[in-house]
Amino acid sequence: MVFGTEIDGGVTAPHGFRAAGAPAGIKPGSTKKDCALMVSDLPAVTVGTFTTNLFKSPPTRWTESVCSNGLARAVFVNSGNANACTGNAGFEDAQATAALVGNGIESPAEGVCILSTGVIGVRLPMDRIALGVQECLKNLSSTGSHDAALAIMTTDTVPKEKAIEVELEAGKIRIGAIAKGSGMISPHMATMFCIITTDAAIEAEPLTDILREAVAGSFNQICVDNDMSTSDAVICMANGTSSVPVVTSRPEDYELFRQAMIELCQEMAKALVRDGEGASKFVEIQVTGAASDKDAKAIARAIAVSQLCKTAFYGQDPNWGRIACAVGYSGAKLDPAKVSIWIDDVQVMEHGMPAAFEEAAAAACMKKPEFRIRIECGKGPGKTTFWTTDLSHEYVKINADYRS
Amino acid sequence: MVFGTEIDGGVTAPHGFRAAGAPAGIKPGSTKKDCALMVSDLPAVTVGTFTTNLFKSPPTRWTESVCSNGLARAVFVNSGNANACTGNAGFEDAQATAALVGNGIESPAEGVCILSTGVIGVRLPMDRIALGVQECLKNLSSTGSHDAALAIMTTDTVPKEKAIEVELEAGKIRIGAIAKGSGMISPHMATMFCIITTDAAIEAEPLTDILREAVAGSFNQICVDNDMSTSDAVICMANGTSSVPVVTSRPEDYELFRQAMIELCQEMAKALVRDGEGASKFVEIQVTGAASDKDAKAIARAIAVSQLCKTAFYGQDPNWGRIACAVGYSGAKLDPAKVSIWIDDVQVMEHGMPAAFEEAAAAACMKKPEFRIRIECGKGPGKTTFWTTDLSHEYVKINADYRS
Repeated sequence: MVFGTEIDGGVTAPHGFRAAGAPAGIKPGSTKKDCALMVSDLPAVTVGTFTTNLFKSPPTRWTESVCSNGLARAVFVNSGNANACTGNAGFEDAQATAALVGNGIESPAEGVCILSTGVIGVRLPMDRIALGVQECLKNLSSTGSHDAALAIMTTDTVPKEKAIEVELEAGKIRIGAIAKGSGMISPHMATMFCIITTDAAIEAEPLTDILREAVAGSFNQICVDNDMSTSDAVICMANGTSSVPVVTSRPEDYELFRQAMIELCQEMAKALVRDGEGASKFVEIQVTGAASDKDAKAIARAIAVSQLCKTAFYGQDPNWGRIACAVGYSGAKLDPAKVSIWIDDVQVMEHGMPAAFEEAAAAACMKKPEFRIRIECGKGPGKTTFWTTDLSHEYVKINADYRS
Repeated sequence: MVFGTEIDGGVTAPHGFRAAGAPAGIKPGSTKKDCALMVSDLPAVTVGTFTTNLFKSPPTRWTESVCSNGLARAVFVNSGNANACTGNAGFEDAQATAALVGNGIESPAEGVCILSTGVIGVRLPMDRIALGVQECLKNLSSTGSHDAALAIMTTDTVPKEKAIEVELEAGKIRIGAIAKGSGMISPHMATMFCIITTDAAIEAEPLTDILREAVAGSFNQICVDNDMSTSDAVICMANGTSSVPVVTSRPEDYELFRQAMIELCQEMAKALVRDGEGASKFVEIQVTGAASDKDAKAIARAIAVSQLCKTAFYGQDPNWGRIACAVGYSGAKLDPAKVSIWIDDVQVMEHGMPAAFEEAAAAACMKKPEFRIRIECGKGPGKTTFWTTDLSHEYVKINADYRS
């Protein structure tokens, strides 16, 4: 990390936060940890970004309204059931869950964010949720982040957890995060779950600005399968426990905090892609020279979601024609005769024509678990970086069998 | 067929057309038929619709200019090499191929359409092309449609060929078609290859109108993998040999011809989907009650291309949450609380909530090789029908191994 020093502790690394994870059997027959709770000892400035899916789940709508209040004490998460497409009854379930948590930490329900992930269209088993809330409350601890990171996993194969310490001029602050998600990942203007905590003292408005920018450059630049979930959410809680202010009147500190937040979000976003469903490749797509940043994103996204590009990544086949083809239908303004393409440092297309290259050299790049596709458009200043996976047999297996 | 009687003969069923197919080894080592030629004895009114991919291939650009002349004598097609991303040299290759064909049928090169399909970014082997042209010229016959249909196949597993006779008041006319395509299928404003012949006497302007409408309702409403090719084209040649006029001043005949053309294009489009790469399911998506036809299409397309919906189709899993999710992020204006979803006749979602249904009944529908997803939006008059495939292990296998 460039802008901070990595430390242990995830979301409980920042001072004044406790967390827990516990198994409650939300998914029938499951014994894995499936409920997580993060609590700030003091009311924390809490902001979020959320899915733009019109079937936004009831808990997501509940949590949006909590964040619009600006202050919260806790985030409760369950996996195994998304409580989505469940109508008013589902909203009441989310609200009741918040009330249960609120009772345990002496907070109104309106100070408790609720996130739910898992199968869509099934009512929450409220007796199990009550058990999960109880267990989490009992186990809350300042080293509980890892349990929480485990509990929010669905098809994830590894927990995603990170924390950094940032040395501002005004003093040291800490930022921690946990995240989950490896399928239904195409967070167009929103994202999956990531809960970020910090003990910096920052107001809701600048925190919202920084979080939006960080999400735009991280979670909104990744793709596993181009399906945008009903429940995506990134929530950031800042409880000020460090007494270190992050304010625009201290521009250097503000800038450092901003950069650190962006970097942490990018690390978490890349961790999601690396653990993408069935992924055997982590592919960075770099677009430069596009007419605009918007066009650069359109090009990167077209490649990132193309089934033909993704199966070629899986097959380790430097079939650059499929990449050029995706560039061509991306909708971006282009002069095809100016487009060049590289796989890592091997140029495969030069100004719209096949480049002179050794097929074996390009194939060798793609044999690595991580490689980069670079597109130079020769058109303007637009650029972007995007991260995606391949499309593998394992992906089909996971998703053809998901519920059985 | 409702608007015509099915007859044998494909593109050579209409009078005054001959065709042939021959092997020329375009793809190194291949012995399959890979060159096809269709010739009209008389100059035919010839119109087309083409891919909107900016990396439109040189032969596609050549053929667009032939069609803009309005009259042509022949269509030559090669599989095994798309002659795409090959720059000016590729355009000269297409032109040279047209000249070779033109020499053999006493036509200027400008009267010969050229279509190429196969790998992108490799120059055409012109010696092989010359051989293919020669063989096709030698074998031209009024029963050659089937050989031509075989020769244009790439990853297709079955040839697609159909012809109908339509009884207009002014007399009988015939329409025939061959088509190819099973991958890189997401013809947004264009399509893959389909060559249509008719012996009706019709001018370029009404023929263009009718073809555009037919393509919009057929080839533009299908999807295998959401990748739009560099070479998509539908060409229609009308040589007037029947002496039966299709003119707007005979509105009943005009309407019947129009409906027959739409029906034939839909049959060919559905044949492409049924033979989609790795497809084990043929899924019709019917959207009604959307705010507009455009919104209906956006909803249908979102489901049709969703990797999660397509793997659920493959897994025969009535996981309607994924369908609702795709509806929600389609970009269409919607009131989620008014949306209902059916799998065949089993209602799985009612006004935004889970419907009361037997899981086994819904699963039984999906066990069939063909089934229908129906979405009623309760919002307006917008509607559409779309056809798609599942996403199978076989798809990944075909496309991870394509070039090896």
